[in-house]
Amino acid sequence: MKTVQEIRQAIARGEWRKPTAGLAPGFIQANLVILEKRYAFDFLLFCQRNEKACPVIDVCESGEVAPQLAGPRADVRIHVPRYRIYRKGVLAEEPGDILAYFNDEMVSFFLGCSFSFEHDLIANGIPVRHIELGCNVPMYITNRECRPAGVFSGPMVVTLRPIPEDRVDDAAAITAKHRKAHGAPLHVGDPAALGIRDVQKPDFGDPPEIRPGEVPVFWACGVTPQAALMRAKLDLVITHAPGYMFITDVPDVLES
Amino acid sequence: MKTVQEIRQAIARGEWRKPTAGLAPGFIQANLVILEKRYAFDFLLFCQRNEKACPVIDVCESGEVAPQLAGPRADVRIHVPRYRIYRKGVLAEEPGDILAYFNDEMVSFFLGCSFSFEHDLIANGIPVRHIELGCNVPMYITNRECRPAGVFSGPMVVTLRPIPEDRVDDAAAITAKHRKAHGAPLHVGDPAALGIRDVQKPDFGDPPEIRPGEVPVFWACGVTPQAALMRAKLDLVITHAPGYMFITDVPDVLES
Repeated sequence: MKTVQEIRQAIARGEWRKPTAGLAPGFIQANLVILEKRYAFDFLLFCQRNEKACPVIDVCESGEVAPQLAGPRADVRIHVPRYRIYRKGVLAEEPGDILAYFNDEMVSFFLGCSFSFEHDLIANGIPVRHIELGCNVPMYITNRECRPAGVFSGPMVVTLRPIPEDRVDDAAAITAKHRKAHGAPLHVGDPAALGIRDVQKPDFGDPPEIRPGEVPVFWACGVTPQAALMRAKLDLVITHAPGYMFITDVPDVLES
Repeated sequence: MKTVQEIRQAIARGEWRKPTAGLAPGFIQANLVILEKRYAFDFLLFCQRNEKACPVIDVCESGEVAPQLAGPRADVRIHVPRYRIYRKGVLAEEPGDILAYFNDEMVSFFLGCSFSFEHDLIANGIPVRHIELGCNVPMYITNRECRPAGVFSGPMVVTLRPIPEDRVDDAAAITAKHRKAHGAPLHVGDPAALGIRDVQKPDFGDPPEIRPGEVPVFWACGVTPQAALMRAKLDLVITHAPGYMFITDVPDVLES
């Protein structure tokens, strides 16, 4: 099996231009957000205030390309298979590296994603439907506002996973332990309580397949900070492309 | 019993110029740090990277006087009984309010303190010696470095509480639940492992009284960020005076 650093090198050489799910099993994958230092305090505060949606795994100093904790040998400019460049909140490009965009004034944030808790659900015999079906998790913009911070504000975005009724408590307890991967559910049961009119029409991802005896369970989603970033219309924001994550050196075990 | 807001008003009128321990039982008390916005990202990142020593309860926007979560009706300029003004890392004054110092460029941070977990230890029948004796907890500068962030760096500072040997596991489990109040112990047993030569000569506070059958247990201490702030020698830093805490509106129950 390839090491994390070998996988990164393959990505840097352009040999892996696909989503990263399943790559480097046993290591945490992270959402990446890069923005100018003058907005870094506001964004870190937004993450702090909306911890379930924006769990911070690591943050670089301005200009630093390797996260000290999450990947001290990584280079954030070349080790993600596909990036997104947003200008004034609008997607402008999807390059394979960001060498032409990154500079000493940029700060990189690494935020947890739900891969970790999904692995733990499956390991505990709780089905994760969208993984079984090989499709994307359904995501919804809710009627709950994030707590704003500086220039950042926006609605909470959630994911839905149908869970067998008799395993809902287990699913809540298992995911609660994954504090850096969105933690416990935000809501169980009634989509209307979150302002979701029709679960079959998600705002992002694929519609859910909810089977008899299953309950819709909603977790905070890493699209939440992206939505706040788009709304802020900053001159320049760089993120990973959805599904093309940053692979960390952090083993996927529970933090104490 | 007086409400939190009534206590704050008494403090603002100068009617309470004493330490706040025991005031407003049932509500979390917080360490206060106020610094210029240009250093706010670095300091928030320092807290993020050294979470056990610097658990963030709330942060204000620059110029904001009321923490939205911790005290939406509070005024950080007048609701602490005694402040400390540091200039270039040196204590300059100890005023009863900071109306003459605070401005729109200042950012206020509210950090957890150990009062919460001490109450929980006592409630669980585990003695807390320095409270029994009515003296100050012993504090030590260790040989462990904090993870630096921007202009902030320094050693980890710890507190010592002697715990009966058969209650050490309980004490660790109880305090681990208080994530916003320094959490689980950093170390149990050997002071030398932290570079402490003589526990009877603490760097701050009073010497411990360790009785037969008791083990020294060390927790991260809120003096840690203060030490990093002093070392950074910023033009202006404002803190509470030790023991004269900010009383929050946050009930002292465990966060989920």
